[in-house]
Amino acid sequence: MQKPVLTPQSEDFPRWYQDVLTKAKLAENGPARGTMVIRPTGYAIWEAMQAEVDGRIKAAGAQNAYFPLLIPMNFFEREAEHVEGFSPELAVVTHGGGKELAESLAIRPTSEAVIGEYMAKWVDSYRDLPLLLNQWANVVRWELRPRIFLRTTEFLWQEGHTAHATDSDARQYARRILHGVYQDFLRNVLAMPVIVGRKTAKERFAGAVNTMTCEGVMRDGKALQMATSHELGQRFSRAFNISYSSAKGITELCWTTSWGSSTRMLGGLIMCHGDDYGLVLPPALAPVQAVVVVVKDSDGSVTRAASAIVDELTQRGVRVRLDDDVDAAFGWRATDWDLRGVPIRVELGPRDLAENTALAYRRDTREKTKTGIDKVVDEVQQLADRIQTDMFEAATARRDAAITDCATLDQAREAAQTGVARVPWEVVGIAGEQDLATSGLTVRCLQLSDGSLPDTDDDAGALAYVARAY
Amino acid sequence: MQKPVLTPQSEDFPRWYQDVLTKAKLAENGPARGTMVIRPTGYAIWEAMQAEVDGRIKAAGAQNAYFPLLIPMNFFEREAEHVEGFSPELAVVTHGGGKELAESLAIRPTSEAVIGEYMAKWVDSYRDLPLLLNQWANVVRWELRPRIFLRTTEFLWQEGHTAHATDSDARQYARRILHGVYQDFLRNVLAMPVIVGRKTAKERFAGAVNTMTCEGVMRDGKALQMATSHELGQRFSRAFNISYSSAKGITELCWTTSWGSSTRMLGGLIMCHGDDYGLVLPPALAPVQAVVVVVKDSDGSVTRAASAIVDELTQRGVRVRLDDDVDAAFGWRATDWDLRGVPIRVELGPRDLAENTALAYRRDTREKTKTGIDKVVDEVQQLADRIQTDMFEAATARRDAAITDCATLDQAREAAQTGVARVPWEVVGIAGEQDLATSGLTVRCLQLSDGSLPDTDDDAGALAYVARAY
Repeated sequence: MQKPVLTPQSEDFPRWYQDVLTKAKLAENGPARGTMVIRPTGYAIWEAMQAEVDGRIKAAGAQNAYFPLLIPMNFFEREAEHVEGFSPELAVVTHGGGKELAESLAIRPTSEAVIGEYMAKWVDSYRDLPLLLNQWANVVRWELRPRIFLRTTEFLWQEGHTAHATDSDARQYARRILHGVYQDFLRNVLAMPVIVGRKTAKERFAGAVNTMTCEGVMRDGKALQMATSHELGQRFSRAFNISYSSAKGITELCWTTSWGSSTRMLGGLIMCHGDDYGLVLPPALAPVQAVVVVVKDSDGSVTRAASAIVDELTQRGVRVRLDDDVDAAFGWRATDWDLRGVPIRVELGPRDLAENTALAYRRDTREKTKTGIDKVVDEVQQLADRIQTDMFEAATARRDAAITDCATLDQAREAAQTGVARVPWEVVGIAGEQDLATSGLTVRCLQLSDGSLPDTDDDAGALAYVARAY
Repeated sequence: MQKPVLTPQSEDFPRWYQDVLTKAKLAENGPARGTMVIRPTGYAIWEAMQAEVDGRIKAAGAQNAYFPLLIPMNFFEREAEHVEGFSPELAVVTHGGGKELAESLAIRPTSEAVIGEYMAKWVDSYRDLPLLLNQWANVVRWELRPRIFLRTTEFLWQEGHTAHATDSDARQYARRILHGVYQDFLRNVLAMPVIVGRKTAKERFAGAVNTMTCEGVMRDGKALQMATSHELGQRFSRAFNISYSSAKGITELCWTTSWGSSTRMLGGLIMCHGDDYGLVLPPALAPVQAVVVVVKDSDGSVTRAASAIVDELTQRGVRVRLDDDVDAAFGWRATDWDLRGVPIRVELGPRDLAENTALAYRRDTREKTKTGIDKVVDEVQQLADRIQTDMFEAATARRDAAITDCATLDQAREAAQTGVARVPWEVVGIAGEQDLATSGLTVRCLQLSDGSLPDTDDDAGALAYVARAY
């Protein structure tokens, strides 16, 4: 029986999280306050996320581009709510090339302002619409309480920015991204069931007329915003004069959207699926889906058999590694593969080989199955599918168990201490939301009873999800 | 006969370059001085470059990671030559979150300093070596004379950083990257013949003991540094205390390398292959390798036949597009596909269809071949290979024609006005190099007569390549 090398979740969840980051070599603090270093193990997971999200963004018709890191301060000031929201978080460059700059430059906290300027240049007629852009970039927001992946001064993300001829086209596209890119990715790749809803006015992106969100529920019952999609109405098109001439030759303002997902998703992945033994990666995402471990070997025969399994799995397209480091204790290696969250482990020792069997271990449930050595490759492939499904189902069960239906604000405040309270929005209201904030609770999103999104801030039937959040 | 829409190269090469950037919608200036916006067409080329370079870097055993954008000023000051070289180019953040910072932060101009700090933490024993890291990132260097892709205040790049137990291992790895990643990519993907050599002490990277370079020769005879690989000796390991305990238990300093390639390669691609009709992309790189153009169509039959060709090419793995925009004039569309550098164009009109033929056009030579409609798919695939080979050969012939062997400094100065002068390094020397600099000429690199790299700064047999450079 392996001993956990991490602080147990039940004892101290934040410390468990920090332990996983350190011991699985995912990331550590950077030298400047609030920054992070993403180590190769963590970055490989981010690359896998990027590939999946990027493919979905391209399938939705958006094209990648790149806009500058440094934005003149006056650009921010053009949209009043936007500058008010982001001013307190800006990092400002005042000197360049050894001289003080005539105008200071902000490091982008998000790129609506600079992209708005170029959309205005590029959009001329209705034929240029919709203009669907995305960029993968780093952004900087001065964080008061930084925590690796969850809130860092610098983080990596993709930010989509689109311009449309009509309100309805913009609305539809923002929802297409929300569901077709984010929710689909989170569900089918990260195996995360999210609560998809509309943000309240208080929680809306600075400058948006509507923010929609995918909220994940972590194993400690707290919520984490995984991705957001914003309708910006005509605010930015007015501020930056993003206009087009219609088929009738009339000049009209565009309707814009923006939407983003970031390295914060790595934090969500860790805290949604991880357990006392470390990271648990869903097979669809895992950079290494299976490892074939040589338990012991005296004459090379076990290693040869293990290599043959690795070759066969590779041929079938499984991302697999061989662990033939028999000089290190098996228990130590098993603990390490657990820590790193590799979904499937095939264990092979001399006795197994003599019996023509192998052990197939699944990381999510920590179950071992003895299987014929000639069947182990099939078993790994079936396990990969099963684990993906089971992880989503287990996470869904945890999420549902974390949600408590409440009828009053007091009940909601109580339930949200350890989980998510679902309470009619008319019971909460703007005053109740302010009141909850004094207890460190936020309305994560609003949803109608059928799971769909309210179209307005005060839909009578809306339910509020109230929780502590990262 | 199409008319060029660009300033001819022979008339004004820099203006031709600017015209290509604008008219092919590759990139434009950002709002802050010296920054750039990379538009979707340009960014798709960069993504193709990234995929090819990243694959080669991973094949060389390096792993991707991510280090912070913001670096405390004191980190730079630890390596004397490094700080001296980069200080004049730094962009400095003095304010964050609405307050003046206690210590100013530099935006990374390169990451040796911050990565050195972490290598020191992560390397403990000889078993941790070599440590092979790479990151894809943006960097900022204050440029006095910015020019899109060639010299921009912010640019995108990859920077590799490695630590080794021995000088010889570091030397070998720096060369493996130079040849196996950069030269191979430039040759086999970008179809660019480069001059591979050693930089003189004057041109060396600030902090390196040896800088090796791949120098491209542009169509105007100027040189462009495409990628560099540096041996850093023990300078950074001394400055950051990157040490390991050897098999004998003795504490030793590591030997480090760094190496990079950037969006500047986009500039090199444009200026090495481009002509008066626009961009010319090698098929191995081109995001769109072939376009099937419906010249005219009255009853849909031509479009159906063109679509069938597109489907067949897609099935064979060719990156292909259909242009069925028959409302736009064919000449205008042809000009536009030329501008964008798509390697192969299949043209199909009603008369071709009646004859069961199609025209296959190759962008590099602008030749058209009539071919049977049932053979056109094979023809496109063969053309792709042929164009790739021919573009490399044509660029090699241009490069070789641009090089003049010179025996004296005066001859070299003369020859380098319009091309590359090759002159014995002992004729130039440190004094001659200073003298050439007053005429705007630089020694691009040193090479031995067999094409190999000198091991020292003053190898008696070394030849200097002297040129104007971007």
